[in-house]
Amino acid sequence: MRILGVDCGSRRTGYGVIDTDGVEHKVIAAGVIQTIPSHPFERRLLEVAGTLRRLIGEYSPEAAAVEEVFYSANVKTALKLAHVRGAVLTVIAEAGVPLAEYSPLEIKMSVVGYGRAEKRQVQAMVRSLLHLREAVESEDASDALAAAICRATRGPVERLQREPA
Amino acid sequence: MRILGVDCGSRRTGYGVIDTDGVEHKVIAAGVIQTIPSHPFERRLLEVAGTLRRLIGEYSPEAAAVEEVFYSANVKTALKLAHVRGAVLTVIAEAGVPLAEYSPLEIKMSVVGYGRAEKRQVQAMVRSLLHLREAVESEDASDALAAAICRATRGPVERLQREPA
Repeated sequence: MRILGVDCGSRRTGYGVIDTDGVEHKVIAAGVIQTIPSHPFERRLLEVAGTLRRLIGEYSPEAAAVEEVFYSANVKTALKLAHVRGAVLTVIAEAGVPLAEYSPLEIKMSVVGYGRAEKRQVQAMVRSLLHLREAVESEDASDALAAAICRATRGPVERLQREPA
Repeated sequence: MRILGVDCGSRRTGYGVIDTDGVEHKVIAAGVIQTIPSHPFERRLLEVAGTLRRLIGEYSPEAAAVEEVFYSANVKTALKLAHVRGAVLTVIAEAGVPLAEYSPLEIKMSVVGYGRAEKRQVQAMVRSLLHLREAVESEDASDALAAAICRATRGPVERLQREPA
């Protein structure tokens, strides 16, 4: 099964594509969609949406995993991130790719086995689980791969528990 | 000039289209994009995006006005709203329609002349400015028309002041 993971950010959005049988995973693609900060915000949203649409067209994932919004830090940043996430979820729905959403805790649990794992531990485990010689340099791409691995090992999410208001 | 106003909401998104010479305005269309609460959130985003895309295709607005996120109330609701707004801004950018964003205060100032105006006052002034026999029933549609009127009377926004982080 081919899974697309996306790690949305207000400035950078990571992506990762893996092939998996639920136990063994292989990385197909990983990278970061970087937008130009001086561009108007709606243009940056369009750049993320357009690039993601192309990636879905190129890799034809059968499932997608996106981390839920994490908003402990800064409301303004969380709101920007939510705009990007809105654009990303729309593109995924448009392409008809089934979506799963996971909390940061769920993703860390499934990758490291410990919900309060540090970023470095997540990167190291992503590297190990994907049999990579080196860690994925970009944290955003690594986090996107972690979301994809979470989808691979946990399966689709019970939607009824997660119905939005 | 034809202007599209959009009032994004976590459940309902209002829209309004006006023709204006900057002084006199005429309503062309107004309504609410209502999504089905039991649908998965990404599908609801897609419904809003798809309907807005069709409206832009049908009415060919030359400018768009969208209210900024208002997040005094509830962080969870504001985050849902920001997702919808992300989908909406992406569609507007995709269609190449120039976007202006206004705060609730700016919109009230330009429609009622008073930034702390109540919702009923805004509805009454929208009705009066558009020479309607009755107030626009839906508050969401009325707010969308108010955003369009704000764009008509204030003109495009200085983007440099509003550059996102």
